Amino acid sequence: MGTASAVFTLTTDFGLLDPYAGQLKGALLTGCPSATIIDLTHAIPAWDVVTAAVTIRTSYAFFPTGTIHLIVVDPGVGGQRSVLVASGDGHFFIGPDNGVLSLLILDHKMTAVHRVERAEFFAPSVSPTFHGRDVMAPVAAALAQGMGLDYFGPAAALADLRMAIAPSTVATAGRLHGQVQRIDHFGNVRTSIRAGGGRFDPTSFGFLEIGDQRVAPLVRTYNEAPAGSLFVLIDSSGYLEIAANQASAAAMIDCAPGDPITVRLVQK
Amino acid sequence: MGTASAVFTLTTDFGLLDPYAGQLKGALLTGCPSATIIDLTHAIPAWDVVTAAVTIRTSYAFFPTGTIHLIVVDPGVGGQRSVLVASGDGHFFIGPDNGVLSLLILDHKMTAVHRVERAEFFAPSVSPTFHGRDVMAPVAAALAQGMGLDYFGPAAALADLRMAIAPSTVATAGRLHGQVQRIDHFGNVRTSIRAGGGRFDPTSFGFLEIGDQRVAPLVRTYNEAPAGSLFVLIDSSGYLEIAANQASAAAMIDCAPGDPITVRLVQK
Amino acid sequence: MGTASAVFTLTTDFGLLDPYAGQLKGALLTGCPSATIIDLTHAIPAWDVVTAAVTIRTSYAFFPTGTIHLIVVDPGVGGQRSVLVASGDGHFFIGPDNGVLSLLILDHKMTAVHRVERAEFFAPSVSPTFHGRDVMAPVAAALAQGMGLDYFGPAAALADLRMAIAPSTVATAGRLHGQVQRIDHFGNVRTSIRAGGGRFDPTSFGFLEIGDQRVAPLVRTYNEAPAGSLFVLIDSSGYLEIAANQASAAAMIDCAPGDPITVRLVQK
Repeated sequence: MGTASAVFTLTTDFGLLDPYAGQLKGALLTGCPSATIIDLTHAIPAWDVVTAAVTIRTSYAFFPTGTIHLIVVDPGVGGQRSVLVASGDGHFFIGPDNGVLSLLILDHKMTAVHRVERAEFFAPSVSPTFHGRDVMAPVAAALAQGMGLDYFGPAAALADLRMAIAPSTVATAGRLHGQVQRIDHFGNVRTSIRAGGGRFDPTSFGFLEIGDQRVAPLVRTYNEAPAGSLFVLIDSSGYLEIAANQASAAAMIDCAPGDPITVRLVQK
Repeated sequence: MGTASAVFTLTTDFGLLDPYAGQLKGALLTGCPSATIIDLTHAIPAWDVVTAAVTIRTSYAFFPTGTIHLIVVDPGVGGQRSVLVASGDGHFFIGPDNGVLSLLILDHKMTAVHRVERAEFFAPSVSPTFHGRDVMAPVAAALAQGMGLDYFGPAAALADLRMAIAPSTVATAGRLHGQVQRIDHFGNVRTSIRAGGGRFDPTSFGFLEIGDQRVAPLVRTYNEAPAGSLFVLIDSSGYLEIAANQASAAAMIDCAPGDPITVRLVQK
Repeated sequence: MGTASAVFTLTTDFGLLDPYAGQLKGALLTGCPSATIIDLTHAIPAWDVVTAAVTIRTSYAFFPTGTIHLIVVDPGVGGQRSVLVASGDGHFFIGPDNGVLSLLILDHKMTAVHRVERAEFFAPSVSPTFHGRDVMAPVAAALAQGMGLDYFGPAAALADLRMAIAPSTVATAGRLHGQVQRIDHFGNVRTSIRAGGGRFDPTSFGFLEIGDQRVAPLVRTYNEAPAGSLFVLIDSSGYLEIAANQASAAAMIDCAPGDPITVRLVQK
């Protein structure tokens, strides 16, 4: 990785009302003038570490090898929590030690995690309320210049890191119990239930029941079912999703992030 | 066009809540590391092919020659519709065969349109619900590497392509009948009525009537009329627009996209 | 500054519903193919010159030397107001003569301000309603090519420029009187009261009263106070901010931009 092709992604809860993301990008460009900076999203719900962790888990692999991913959802900014710099699966990750990187650790994707302690790359004046701009961006720029993780501080034992408590999937007698993870822009209900990996093979089932409401069929694409009818599919990140053809599934089943979702699998 | 200067634009209905646009950009950068990627808009109303078609028609020419425009408003994703790759007026265009490119065809801007059939550039695993990321972005990156349209699949006969039914303008006895196309961020009411081309010469008229409500005068700029008063001008894309000086015209005339608009032209 | 590293920032009231920001970027890339374009924000409230002026004042310095900042909040577009091109503190600034650059002038940051009069760089057809795209972007691209300010038009006397009337801070008998400048995405209440500069030394005080409501303590970071409780800190731009730990201070004290804020300083 050289400076000529450094790619950075941003995953934050900053929203787009304020110049915060822009200021952070300015700090990146100051340290790495040739940076290509991509907004993964600035719409993580405020202080929602779990959604940030799910977002980077399901998105990083679409970027080129060597990409540096900043995850700045940081309610503890300025306090005792460390800033972490990590590498794994050919990518780099920077974020606070509050769980935003923890699903990548659970997935066994991280090969090295260090705590950032050397301040020589930080901004000349570090605001105690904006480490994304004054600490993480300068560290990311230094990474792009080729600095090794060792340089920034000591390796962290994985067992010592804060883990996000992500909604898990529990399987009982033909049922899968998970949670609503996210309502997307289209009203699709993205759940915590992952397909594959031995847990849930979507090709085996003809339809599913969601709570008390039958959903048929389990389909591959949004347009296989009649307009407005509910169905289930595997979304583009590999999770079970409740959707509707050109309509909002979330409005139809009246659910919100965090709600429990129980799915009964019905054989073909 | 070489890889060093490849410019891509994105016109989608993804919104900005989710990492979808970011993932698509990751796929573009993976195939074309030097890509410059510009968001034209991610706020096309969900599944609204006509608004996407109007947006790219009125925007592409502001970009450098050789720009590759992706239009990902794709309610039929994963179904039978083709993905098209097209060129015309020095630009390239990629989108589903559902009408998003059809206004450029009606404008006689397209010189070649091909159907994408060769899968060798696609992502290793193609999600049936996200062809923007797994099909269109890799095709766009290959285009930027210099691949000809022939490479991706056979030429399509223009007569076989799906056309968007854009609101048309009908002129009758001193009146123009069109539709509200879009309420913009400022509350300006952008209509389907285009100036010029022999149909409507704005320099001939002193004022216009909109429905029952007189609007005077026909002005050039937003600040010629008193603050808060309604007027009509030709917008920055060449369409007739109903606006107000530092106020929302849409709130004042209570209209929504799709509403019919009749304008009576009153000579100076 | 060469074309290889030209960085541009955009501060506008365009919002993100429409392709206006995208079209402006197309114009920048047409004139400067290697441009790096950063959105500082497109969420300035419509026609709000003061918020634009505060945003660029507090953000420009985070970008590399030589960055060209476009501030396009322009209710007078197409009328008699000039477009200004300016330099100072190693940066360049382009915006209408309506006050958007005036806080930088008040801060004594501007070393040269010129009025844009030569039209040879403008778009072939200049829309009277979109000078950001058709005038300011081409001028910015020409600046990036190395044109001096002299080239665009005559120097302006600072005393002749329009000034934004920014909320000022008045100190009386242990009280500071300012205004609510902005409610940010997190519900933090950013005020017009600046720390430092002899006016307000935050290290001297233990707590503050806001109106009738006691706030304690004056803290450094969001997480020092119990969750949900109000406090005051110095924000990442150096202004006094009323905030809460993982809660919306704006909802708790029920205020809006423009509201007067009086703070009573209580010694430690």
